Amino acid sequence: MNLEWRLILASASPRRRQLLQGLDLPVEITRTDVDETPPEGMPIAQVAEHLARKKADAYTTALAKDQVLITADTTVLLGDRLLNKPADAAEACGMLRLLAGRTHQVVTGVCLRTAQRTVSFSDIAVVTFAPLTEAQIAYYVERYQPFDKAGAYGVQDWIGYVAVERIEGSFYTVMGLPLHRVYRTLVDLAESHHIEK
Amino acid sequence: MNLEWRLILASASPRRRQLLQGLDLPVEITRTDVDETPPEGMPIAQVAEHLARKKADAYTTALAKDQVLITADTTVLLGDRLLNKPADAAEACGMLRLLAGRTHQVVTGVCLRTAQRTVSFSDIAVVTFAPLTEAQIAYYVERYQPFDKAGAYGVQDWIGYVAVERIEGSFYTVMGLPLHRVYRTLVDLAESHHIEK
Repeated sequence: MNLEWRLILASASPRRRQLLQGLDLPVEITRTDVDETPPEGMPIAQVAEHLARKKADAYTTALAKDQVLITADTTVLLGDRLLNKPADAAEACGMLRLLAGRTHQVVTGVCLRTAQRTVSFSDIAVVTFAPLTEAQIAYYVERYQPFDKAGAYGVQDWIGYVAVERIEGSFYTVMGLPLHRVYRTLVDLAESHHIEK
Repeated sequence: MNLEWRLILASASPRRRQLLQGLDLPVEITRTDVDETPPEGMPIAQVAEHLARKKADAYTTALAKDQVLITADTTVLLGDRLLNKPADAAEACGMLRLLAGRTHQVVTGVCLRTAQRTVSFSDIAVVTFAPLTEAQIAYYVERYQPFDKAGAYGVQDWIGYVAVERIEGSFYTVMGLPLHRVYRTLVDLAESHHIEK
């Protein structure tokens, strides 16, 4: 609304697509493939933003003046552990056992790039899970196959419904894209772009 | 999952329907019509639970042993004001001007009833809005017509994307049904029902 950007989302996540389309701006979907292994020695809270920038760097097509490339990465942090996407059902169940009855952090890093500039940031949300039974964990992993999700869960599906007791921060950051900050950055970019014209 | 309840949701809200169906239990939809005017003199934080019970009382069909009736009501509180559903566009814009740049409370009251007992509770979430421009408010009200929503906004649509900076509590309470507490109550009711059999 009142913004004339055309967005390019480079992401395989159907959740990010759905969210970004909710801004009522034109969105083109593509994806870039990068190695998502966290760099050795990088503090875990910085990994998401680093990977978001790396995904943007892998998009090498020139941007038109009215285009914004958007990339993002979401990580789940429990104490000093970084939980990635689980490789299989056993690892998914193990992650959910770790998260059950505890509070963890979700960090989503975002990178926005225009022809003129690149902006990136991280947004953090704190999520508290209720205790989970083994039967609940097994049911969820079997039925929802959360293998494309950091920490092995989706806040917008069954386990988010029954087990997430509390969030501090943005729900959409947990879902994979802090839309309020994406929107504010698009407004800022439009203003600076206008000034520079 | 592992629960054998059949749910009856008495609510006209499409959001509550969608959420409750996410528990993976059979859900029958109906509605009851009650006067939603808050009783004179009732503390505003108690109104939502009162109205949820009133909606349950208006459902007079007998419940089978495996059925649970669920009703709910959501209110938006800003200081000592209770914001209802807006009557028209002018009132909707006025509510959004009040909420913009401020923190408010959302209270969702829920009533669950079986053939044997009735349980009700309230759940509170705290929501912080970014400042909004007049153009943003006008766009939202015109395009999204938020006349069926307490406080004139939906946390799961455009304004929730661009303007909600922070939540403390359950996102689903803001959306209209605190599912984690509904689920826990269904588990508790199943256990007490089993004991009494």
